[in-house]
Amino acid sequence: MAKKIPEATAKRLPLYYRYLNNLLYANKLRVSSAELAESIQVDAATIRRDFSYFGPLGRRGYGYDVQKLISFFEKILDQDTLTSVALVGVGNLGHALLNFNFHKNSNVRISAAFDIDPELIGSIQSNVPVYAMKQLREQLQDQRIEIAIITVPATIAQQVTDKLVQAGIKGIMNFTTVRLTAPEGVRVQNIDLTNELQTLIYTVKHG
Amino acid sequence: MAKKIPEATAKRLPLYYRYLNNLLYANKLRVSSAELAESIQVDAATIRRDFSYFGPLGRRGYGYDVQKLISFFEKILDQDTLTSVALVGVGNLGHALLNFNFHKNSNVRISAAFDIDPELIGSIQSNVPVYAMKQLREQLQDQRIEIAIITVPATIAQQVTDKLVQAGIKGIMNFTTVRLTAPEGVRVQNIDLTNELQTLIYTVKHG
Repeated sequence: MAKKIPEATAKRLPLYYRYLNNLLYANKLRVSSAELAESIQVDAATIRRDFSYFGPLGRRGYGYDVQKLISFFEKILDQDTLTSVALVGVGNLGHALLNFNFHKNSNVRISAAFDIDPELIGSIQSNVPVYAMKQLREQLQDQRIEIAIITVPATIAQQVTDKLVQAGIKGIMNFTTVRLTAPEGVRVQNIDLTNELQTLIYTVKHG
Repeated sequence: MAKKIPEATAKRLPLYYRYLNNLLYANKLRVSSAELAESIQVDAATIRRDFSYFGPLGRRGYGYDVQKLISFFEKILDQDTLTSVALVGVGNLGHALLNFNFHKNSNVRISAAFDIDPELIGSIQSNVPVYAMKQLREQLQDQRIEIAIITVPATIAQQVTDKLVQAGIKGIMNFTTVRLTAPEGVRVQNIDLTNELQTLIYTVKHG
């Protein structure tokens, strides 16, 4: 398997995977990059380049075999194994994400939540147990969790990040407004919903 | 005011604005692009280029006047006026976003929600009234709402989009997995939380 693929490509993989499953569901067994392009609004050249990182997957004039692509992406995206992630900070947004807990067909689940509120610790919120922060390392190791979602107040975001890193976390999805510092080897993905909405508003008003 | 600025720049404006407010709060009245760069993890050249779209804001060797920058970005980002947005689809994620309703200092609020569930219509969820879909046009016009958040099931996402466009919506924040089609002049911003998380997992495992 190719080792290093560009981040932009990695970002499109779940999209491809989901769309290919829709095709299979509609009994479509073959697809061209042009058809894929139209449906997912990514241009055909980009799709061909993305796929090329994984070796020859299609044939000129024939297109791509849908089932073959799916089982390929399944392996790449670990769709055959459930990935457990942790959530730290069961406030408004944290509760919200526990309740949402990602799309059913995504094979990703929040399986442990952490908070400092004694009222929450030991309780089950939207089917997810809430643990104390001091149980962090133990739970992450027991459940083999490498990814954590941070929905804590901005003031303690860096401190929580440091604890997560010490406990062996390798990837952080950061919903706070803080730009986190993490050592090399720990990947931070920032999602700032307020920022996204403000950008949209700005673009509508001034674009 | 500059008319067309790059999307990447627009995306950083709320970040700048928020960070500058932190500085003012800490009684810091002057900042260099290098200092800004270090704190928000955007390189100094990018910051200078971003700021240059808005004319001369700083002085060589002096840096930027924090208060001047803030009042400038305030105007640009319409921070002095509250922007109301609508949310369509009060399911798991919809509820979650109503509950979160964006950061308190953001001057953006969801002020109307829409759903088809008779149990929800007419109720108040997390301080936001829920209306029937047939009240869409009327409410959007009355409340002068131009931006909508879509958290409906994928199967009806396009249909809802069409209705929103007919009702005069100019910007859509799309939380569904569907790639929406909208006429020119209507801006669609896709936020796929499941996709973001899967990408993070992929990068941690294969990056």
